[in-house]
Amino acid sequence: MSTLELSARQTADFELLANGGFKPLEGFQGSADWQAICDSMRLADGSPWPIPVTLATDRGEVGETLSLVGSEGTRLGTITIEEVYERDLQHEAQQVYRTTDGQHPGVAAMLREGSRTIAGPISADALPSHIDAVAPYLLSPADTRAKFAELGWKTVVGFQTRNPIHRAHEYITKAALEIVDGLFIHPIVGETKDDDIPADTRMRCYEVLLERYYPPDRVLLGVNPSAMRYAGPREAIFHALVRKNYGCTHFIVGRDHAGVGSYYGTFDAQVIFDEFEPGELGIEPLKFEHSFWCNITKGMATAKTSPSGPEDRVFLSGTKVREMLGRGERPPEEFSRPEVADVLIEAYTGSGAPA
Amino acid sequence: MSTLELSARQTADFELLANGGFKPLEGFQGSADWQAICDSMRLADGSPWPIPVTLATDRGEVGETLSLVGSEGTRLGTITIEEVYERDLQHEAQQVYRTTDGQHPGVAAMLREGSRTIAGPISADALPSHIDAVAPYLLSPADTRAKFAELGWKTVVGFQTRNPIHRAHEYITKAALEIVDGLFIHPIVGETKDDDIPADTRMRCYEVLLERYYPPDRVLLGVNPSAMRYAGPREAIFHALVRKNYGCTHFIVGRDHAGVGSYYGTFDAQVIFDEFEPGELGIEPLKFEHSFWCNITKGMATAKTSPSGPEDRVFLSGTKVREMLGRGERPPEEFSRPEVADVLIEAYTGSGAPA
Repeated sequence: MSTLELSARQTADFELLANGGFKPLEGFQGSADWQAICDSMRLADGSPWPIPVTLATDRGEVGETLSLVGSEGTRLGTITIEEVYERDLQHEAQQVYRTTDGQHPGVAAMLREGSRTIAGPISADALPSHIDAVAPYLLSPADTRAKFAELGWKTVVGFQTRNPIHRAHEYITKAALEIVDGLFIHPIVGETKDDDIPADTRMRCYEVLLERYYPPDRVLLGVNPSAMRYAGPREAIFHALVRKNYGCTHFIVGRDHAGVGSYYGTFDAQVIFDEFEPGELGIEPLKFEHSFWCNITKGMATAKTSPSGPEDRVFLSGTKVREMLGRGERPPEEFSRPEVADVLIEAYTGSGAPA
Repeated sequence: MSTLELSARQTADFELLANGGFKPLEGFQGSADWQAICDSMRLADGSPWPIPVTLATDRGEVGETLSLVGSEGTRLGTITIEEVYERDLQHEAQQVYRTTDGQHPGVAAMLREGSRTIAGPISADALPSHIDAVAPYLLSPADTRAKFAELGWKTVVGFQTRNPIHRAHEYITKAALEIVDGLFIHPIVGETKDDDIPADTRMRCYEVLLERYYPPDRVLLGVNPSAMRYAGPREAIFHALVRKNYGCTHFIVGRDHAGVGSYYGTFDAQVIFDEFEPGELGIEPLKFEHSFWCNITKGMATAKTSPSGPEDRVFLSGTKVREMLGRGERPPEEFSRPEVADVLIEAYTGSGAPA
């Protein structure tokens, strides 16, 4: 049997296919699903699915079974090839990413992979290995569903992130938690952009935050091995469906969810949920505005809950925060918990940076 | 035509029947509806309805039309009597209030009214008049629905209260507002217990709070002329259905909602919503825990969102707060906004108390 080495992104997709995170998918998708997804955000059978999960390679022919090896070296299992086809990458880019701009990181990754695509069911013998910082939090959908049941949570809100959690997102997760039984913090630890903060540093940020500022019996931290696509609105749907598979009943959708640069309108990733019938996705989006510390109400708030103008809001740009952290300075306590700031300062200044 | 003078509670019920707040009811209820409501929280036709709306009087016979005069003197309209019947007050008390204890204020009011009941459709010529503090906020269900549409609110959360809003409830209303388009603050200004704070003082509290701490374009203040029943769980359903008529899509249900004394379990008024099929009530309950300022997270929170023990929570009993206000002292800013405290101090100390 020939062996195919997967890219980091393909390896991540294999893991989600294998662990049930991409249910109902059972393998890398063929041309009928690809076409339906691009054109209508649905599988060929009509069920919602916003982003193709495909395996681009110049190897393999119909009828062949290939052995798959992860980018980190694990012998993962096999794919039985049922179809070989060419994807129209310009069409996919325009439909899924709403742009054909090669500077878009999701489009760029797709173009790098190429158009020749093999499709078919996978069989999993093993899951990819992960760095030590992440490994303890590798819960499968079956694991998290069992955990939610054990905790007695009937309603669970999922929170997707690829960043450290500062107070703005702490506020949003807690506002959501107030109306459900539990909170599932589920950061993406698969491939992200080079300027995103690496997973090991982020995990440490989540740990110190949860330890001090959340009640342990209401929050579960798990990791999502998926790669970021930066597909904005379509990825918000994608993220929601994956979290449904992990057992969530609600999903937080913030401003510019899964966006990058200025490819998407601020609320595009919220509005897109209205393209589905109520109940059709099987998970309820909770849509949040940008949040901040408000000096008038002396609390965290959004424009919906605070009468403040910009002058009364504690807001720092990402650039400003990175500069402060790089100088070893904590951002104001209204912006970031000191414990989280310290983890980031260590990472940015290289002084005893986490392993 | 004979004239029947209504009690304050009956006058309030007439107003809600006339303005559509009690839709689908078109008059005071007959024995078939009364029986079905008591036994199954439903009208005789099966639709959800938790508390009978009845007219107890020793006057009137079947076929007669009575002219109705409100307790405040307004000639309101008429009732055409279709049925005269005796209510089993013990049964109603047990089923609706979960107690036959005559000390329960809702049961006491019912027993005072007596068991002879007339039923039939009403015809409204006028609505009851109200005190000046309340009159500007008398919005009918048609008014509020039009207002919500004008504001572009597709989702609106209703908040019931019979108290001033301190920070605990401010927090809950804002947490709810984060996931909907607008907030409808809808205090009950009909008959309440003697030790509840009078409506005029409360209206002033709401005004100063909204003026300073809420964004004007996200909040509407209206008044609900209904009388409190203190029926706890069943009244929570009642409050939700009435707010659905006013155009709300969501409704806040706190701990011990509409409860009094220790007749109901803390979460009874939340759990009762599970006795209906999802969607059946046509309004979604948002269930909240008791909230407080948390010294650890330095913000408002509940036990669901704060890791604090009691020692880290700013909590004051009602008695303690009343004592402080009576001495002209503001409660801590973490408990009550100073502007609200000042209104209450004026009312409690009689120094320039609101009209």
